[in-house]
Parts: sequence; structure tokens; C-alpha cells
Amino acid sequence: MDLDALKMDLEGLEVEDNPQIVKQKSRDFFWYSPVLKRQLDDVAGDLVVTPSSEDDILRIVKACYEHDVPITTRGAGTGNYGQAMPLAGGLVLNLAKLNKVLEIKTGSVRVQAGAIMAAIDEETRATGQELRMHPSTYRTATIGGFIAGGSGGVGSINWGGLRDLGNIISLRVVTMEEEPRILHLTGTDLQKVSHAYGTNGIITEVEVPLAAAYDWVDVLVAFNGFIDAVHYADAMGNQDGILTKEIAAVAGPVPYEYFLRHQKYLKKDQSVCLFMVASFAMDAFMAFTEQFGKGSVVFRSDTATEEEMKGLPPVYELAWNHTTLRGLRVDPSITYLQVLYPFPDHVEKVAKLTRLFGDEVPGHLEFVRFDGKITCFGLPIVRYTSDDRLEEIMRIHEENGCPIFNPHRYTLEEGGMKQTDAVQLAFKKEADPKGLLNPGKMIAWEDPDFDFNSDRMFLFPGLAR
Amino acid sequence: MDLDALKMDLEGLEVEDNPQIVKQKSRDFFWYSPVLKRQLDDVAGDLVVTPSSEDDILRIVKACYEHDVPITTRGAGTGNYGQAMPLAGGLVLNLAKLNKVLEIKTGSVRVQAGAIMAAIDEETRATGQELRMHPSTYRTATIGGFIAGGSGGVGSINWGGLRDLGNIISLRVVTMEEEPRILHLTGTDLQKVSHAYGTNGIITEVEVPLAAAYDWVDVLVAFNGFIDAVHYADAMGNQDGILTKEIAAVAGPVPYEYFLRHQKYLKKDQSVCLFMVASFAMDAFMAFTEQFGKGSVVFRSDTATEEEMKGLPPVYELAWNHTTLRGLRVDPSITYLQVLYPFPDHVEKVAKLTRLFGDEVPGHLEFVRFDGKITCFGLPIVRYTSDDRLEEIMRIHEENGCPIFNPHRYTLEEGGMKQTDAVQLAFKKEADPKGLLNPGKMIAWEDPDFDFNSDRMFLFPGLAR
Repeated sequence: MDLDALKMDLEGLEVEDNPQIVKQKSRDFFWYSPVLKRQLDDVAGDLVVTPSSEDDILRIVKACYEHDVPITTRGAGTGNYGQAMPLAGGLVLNLAKLNKVLEIKTGSVRVQAGAIMAAIDEETRATGQELRMHPSTYRTATIGGFIAGGSGGVGSINWGGLRDLGNIISLRVVTMEEEPRILHLTGTDLQKVSHAYGTNGIITEVEVPLAAAYDWVDVLVAFNGFIDAVHYADAMGNQDGILTKEIAAVAGPVPYEYFLRHQKYLKKDQSVCLFMVASFAMDAFMAFTEQFGKGSVVFRSDTATEEEMKGLPPVYELAWNHTTLRGLRVDPSITYLQVLYPFPDHVEKVAKLTRLFGDEVPGHLEFVRFDGKITCFGLPIVRYTSDDRLEEIMRIHEENGCPIFNPHRYTLEEGGMKQTDAVQLAFKKEADPKGLLNPGKMIAWEDPDFDFNSDRMFLFPGLAR
Repeated sequence: MDLDALKMDLEGLEVEDNPQIVKQKSRDFFWYSPVLKRQLDDVAGDLVVTPSSEDDILRIVKACYEHDVPITTRGAGTGNYGQAMPLAGGLVLNLAKLNKVLEIKTGSVRVQAGAIMAAIDEETRATGQELRMHPSTYRTATIGGFIAGGSGGVGSINWGGLRDLGNIISLRVVTMEEEPRILHLTGTDLQKVSHAYGTNGIITEVEVPLAAAYDWVDVLVAFNGFIDAVHYADAMGNQDGILTKEIAAVAGPVPYEYFLRHQKYLKKDQSVCLFMVASFAMDAFMAFTEQFGKGSVVFRSDTATEEEMKGLPPVYELAWNHTTLRGLRVDPSITYLQVLYPFPDHVEKVAKLTRLFGDEVPGHLEFVRFDGKITCFGLPIVRYTSDDRLEEIMRIHEENGCPIFNPHRYTLEEGGMKQTDAVQLAFKKEADPKGLLNPGKMIAWEDPDFDFNSDRMFLFPGLAR
């Protein structure tokens, strides 16, 4: 790569090459994983460029193509798998300034990829609408980053995941070719670039459906036993008439020990269910909770005083990977897993794994709709001791029928389905013939013969440079 | 009952006692059932009173209580089980003039019970909202009648049924006592009077949740085989990201023979899936349909010409009991059933019963969310030959694990769970001590010793009068 020539070609654009700032903008939240922390801590790009328009992006792409400089596209860097980290150096493409809301319609919104999700909702809410789903990093994450590297989150209890047809309407994508093309993808074509970490195209615009915007009431329901909490959360998820946007169950002692701002509502060792409930559903929610028994509603934001609410984070910032984040703040030695407990015996599987691991792996479940059924996805806390034990814990989950989406790997395949995604690979061949987009993240491109059935971890050779 | 004294007490109210008009206003759509047609064809009240306010209702209730005159409350009379028919004569309380939309909030609406559902939506749509669910008689049915005598309908694919907590927020109810009370019911108390046919209280106001209002696209997808159509409809129902409001599957030859206005889109003997799809979900809907294969989209309202749309009923008027209605118009000898095919093997159950009955019972499935899962509820057409055979057909369904909600009975219990509803009975004892509200419909009140396990049909003695 010829960086000097590149810089000349980029004259007039916002280019940053101060090594400290570049390094800072080359990082994401990979450090939730002790494995990735060790592997990626030194990763840095060579320069960060912040385009203001799609035309800027076309110019950058052409120049990088000519000078063989890799491009790693970055939203807000809130991902957890190093997906926004430039393993082979080169140019970090910071989309922060492509943040306009372009068009709001009944049922959908079209925005630039760098728009922050909470900022999008601020505009759509004027029409009584909001995004269907968002990660717990709602207030900082970009929608492009979410689509390129996320899978679901708050709202998935109603709408499933980003992989589901209908949760993305269209994407506008710039290819990495000598003459870059601008593609408009819809329908099944969306899977070419969604959740591909920007390895085969640069998403510049996004159209997604909207849901009705409501006043969501944050509710905490405390239980003495985790499995009671899980049964209750699952039953609430199956209540068709009670509209919620978030249902999670977190095993004791995690809530009391890690949810410091909410500690006053909790007793040590209690397990907690976290909810966002539509305000008009609160009567029904309370009626069902009373009927179920066992749990007690220890906090609801609609009856809390203004004084009380000050300084309390919203419930979605206790959930998904914010649970882990709050844990890491209290105890930097912990880490986490990503587990699917498949329907229909998801609760039994949770119970069995809870018995097997006890406090070494305190449960954290996020209830979601998955292929039409309510089930739970887990982000359990792991009291990390060694890589070997971490691997063993994951193996035991899989042996018990619970697939792991390994958050201790930086490649698409190892963090996902552990197999080549033929659609994404074929599109990379077409859209990024030189392999310059986010190198090192798609094993199928880097090492077509890689054996996913071996226990070997893929190590991107470029990382050693 | 002292009708003359009653009439004097009602002076100044809108009272109708012309026998022909009274008889007409004493009927509902009971005649879908040949059994009910025979039993109820002569039923008529003695007078119809149309109150303009809740105060009028209080006056009517007091007077009827004093003179021992039964009250049968009536919405638009679109029910199918004689629920609005005065089996013991007396006063028919016509709520048509209590039809005001009282308050529209974000997420809910409060209305008078006699408001017509389509008329409610006309007002709520100005706020981007609409009712969660409605029967196929949306354009004529009242919301009070739906709650007192319905169970679900269009929209139940998303929200389940009226029985589910959260689908009714509150009800205002007048009791039938010497000093009538006005009760405001919420939470689990709602089950006291919802789906009780007005036997234990007069619902005067209703608060229900609203959903986001969208342009729903009517779509017909034709299949050569019914079971392929069923698999497809079920799979579409399980697509979490594709927003639909209605999913039905109707076996050939019903669509071609009975959906006369849509006949030009269909081939003889084809089975058809009926959909209402959110306009912004059409790309995803078409992508999934193509991926599934087998079916062809033969009609979609968003690409039809204005000319073509003229005279075509909306898809919801092909679905639910409008399928039966259209059948009866072509062939008055048919009738229908109401069947639940329980999850998870609902499709297999449908396939088995389809094999068993062939064209004697052409399938008609309405997909719904039920306890959190997508399953189907059936309203199959029955080529009626005799009561005995009808009973046998129902028995065979139940022997195959598919509960029947018998639409050939006028009592709550026989059309429902075939057991006493202790909550509704207890509330009737409290709210209607003289048993004057809609006599003959609650067996538990009329004949506490009735044996639901006998094959005996309950016959209300009052009917013989």
C-alpha cells in the first residue's frame, strides 16, 4: 500500500493521521473478551478518514483501490468482536458524518448509515414511530454498524433479528472496485452485506421498518430463584396481548452486584427480570405478574419520583451487552458468552446449564422471537479463569444442545455459523476483487481451505505484521 | 313480566314494539347453523329500546328489574350463536346510539360500546392508529358486541385473542340490580364479563389498545394443493420480520366457487392463502414467497388498477366467517365448524383431517398467535347432510386432538370450554340476582346440575314458551 500517494489523492477530505487518535478510532469494544484483548490490543489503522458524503466515499474507494490500501468501515465502534478494527492497517472509514435522516414514511425510515440510532428515533418519534430494534448501545451506536455487525437486541422480543426478512427494507452499498458501483439491495439480496462486517461493500444508506413509538415503562421484577424468574419471563413473552419491548432475566448475584444504580431496589443474590412495557399494558402486566406469583415488582419507572429517576440508567442499559459492561466495571476479570437455547425446551436447557456451572457462569437471558417462537438467547457472565476453561464451558454448552456464537473470535464464521457463507463470499469476489475491505474477518476469503471442524482458531496472518 | 307497566316507566325513551321490527332486531347471524336455525327461528323479544346515554340504560335496568323483564343487549347482531337473541322474550337493548369515540390516546382508545369498529378506526387513524383486531364484520359490528360475543379475528395473528390479558384495557359495566351499579373493570376482572354474551352485566364503555395503522395490502396466493398452502401460510406466520394482519388458507374448490368477485384471479379447485400485508413489508413478503416456491401471487391490491379494485371486497371480507357467508350465498345447504388445531403439530392435524373428510369438509384455516405460538384455528365448510353426521364430524375432530368450539349451540358453555365458568357465574349471582340478563345462555345459571360430559344438548326451557 502506498499511503503517501493515497494521502495526496485524499487532499481536501477530513484525514487524521495522528497515531494516538488513529489508534483510538481503530478500536471497538473487543476488550469484553480476554482472548480478543490479547490478540487485538495493538491493532491500529494508518489513517482515519471522515467523509461527509457518498461522493467523498467514492473518491476514497477509488484512491484506496488504486493504491492497494485496505478500508475498514467504522460506525461508532460499539461492536464487541473487533469487527471495526483494521487488522491489516490502512484506512479507517469513519461514517460519523453521514448521519442524516433522509426520509420518514409511515412504517419506514431511510437514513444515512452513520446516523446514531437514538438520534434517528428522536426524529421519527415526531410521527409516532421508532426503530423496531436496537442494541443496548442505542445512544451511541450507528444504524449502519448495527446492520453490518449486530444481530438484534431490544425489540427482538417482537420482531426477531436483523437476519429475518423484513427487518431491513433496503441498503445502498458502494463496492470496492476500480470503478465503484452503487447498489440498491432489497429482499433476499440483503443477506449479501448485512452482518458481513463491511467485508464486501460499504453501506451508505439504510431503509428499515418502524414500529409504533410508545412510552415504555421500565420494570424490575425480583425473584429469589433464577429458574422461577426464567419461567416467568418466558411466560410473559408468550402473553400475546401484553406489549413489551424488552424481556431479560439475570441471575443473582449479578443484579445486586453489578446494577449499582438500581442496587437499592434489590436484595443480595436476587435474580431479576428486566422489562420495557408499553404504558397502556401495565394493568395487564401487573395482573399477569400477580397471577404468576413468586416475583415482586421492585421498580417501575411510571410510579417512581422524578428525584428517584435521576441518575438511573434506562432498563435497556442494564440489558444485552450492557449487563456485561456493568459487570466489567465492577470486576474486570469476568467475561461472557453468547448462547442460543433453542425452543421448545429452552427453559429446561437453561436450568440444566445453571445446575452444571453454578456461580461460575451466572445466567443472563434475553428473550426473543426466533422463527416465530419465543425463546431465549443468553449472554451469561463467565468468571474467567483460563482460555482452556472458557473453551470447555463453550463445549459443554454445545454438547447440551445450545449453540455458541463465540464472542472470543474476530472472524465472521467463528463468531457465527462456523461455516462459509457462500452468498457473502460470492458477493465479496464481485464487489471487492482485491480483498481490501476489512481484511482478516472473512475466513472463506483469507483461507478457503480452513477446516471449521478442527478445534483450531483462525489467526489472520496480517495481524502479525 | 309486566310489559305494560314497563312501557309506562320507559316513556320518553325510544321504544319499538312493532312485532315485525322487534323480530328483525331480535335476530343475529345464528342461521349459519342449520341446528340453530331450526331452534331459534321464531325467537323474538317483546320490545326494542334504544337508549341514547348511560343514564337511559340505568333507567331501563331499574324498570326491567322492578317488572321482571329480561334484557338482552344487542350490538349490530352480527354474532353467529344467537348470543344477541332474547330466548325468553322481554326487552332487546339496542346500543346502536351509544356510539361515541370518547378518548384517543397513544396506544389506546375509549369508546361507547355501540360504536362500529370501522367507524372507530376512521377516527383513530387520524392519529396513525387502529384497533388491534376485528371480526370480518368490521364494517357493521360494534365493539361491545365483539367483546361480549367474539373471540378474535383479523389481527389475531399478531395479538392473540380477546381472552388474552392486555387486549382489553377496561370495561364499564352496568349491573342488573334494584339499584344498578356502574363498575369499572380492569386486569383479571375483565374476564367476568368479556365473552359472557351480556349475561351478567351491560357493557357501556370499552377501552382497548390500538396498534399502528398501516396501508394493508390485500394479497391472494394460489396453490394447487391445500397442504402446500397450509405449510406456506404457517411459515409466513412464523416470519418475525414480515408484518401481516391476516393470514388464512382456504381449500379448493371453495375460493373459486365462493369468492365470486375474485374468481377471475383463480383456477377451479385451487387453494388460496389470503393475506393483509403492511405495504412496506411487500418486498420481504415477495422474497419469502419466491423462496418458498409452489404458490403464485395471483392478486395484490397495491398493483391492481383502480378499475380492477372497484367491486372487489377487502380480503378480510373473504376471511373468518365471511368465508362461510360467501359459501351460504352460493350454496345455502352448507354450514361450518370452529376448530382449534393445537401447536405444534397443527399442520399434521390439518393434513390428517383433510384426508379423512375430503370434500365433505373443505378446509378453512385462520392463522393466529395462541399462547405465544403461531397455530391455526379452523372454520371449515361442512357439506351438511344431517345433525347426526355433523355431530360425528365434530367428534372425529376431537378424537384427533382438535377441540371444537361448537357453533351449533347457543349457550356459552357448549360453544366454549364445555364447563362452568366459575368467575362468570359468580359475577352473575352478584350483578344479576334475578337472572334477567340474556336468559338461557349460561347453563351454569339455568341448570347447575347439567352434565357437560353427557352427549345431551342443553335446551333452554324458556324457548318453549
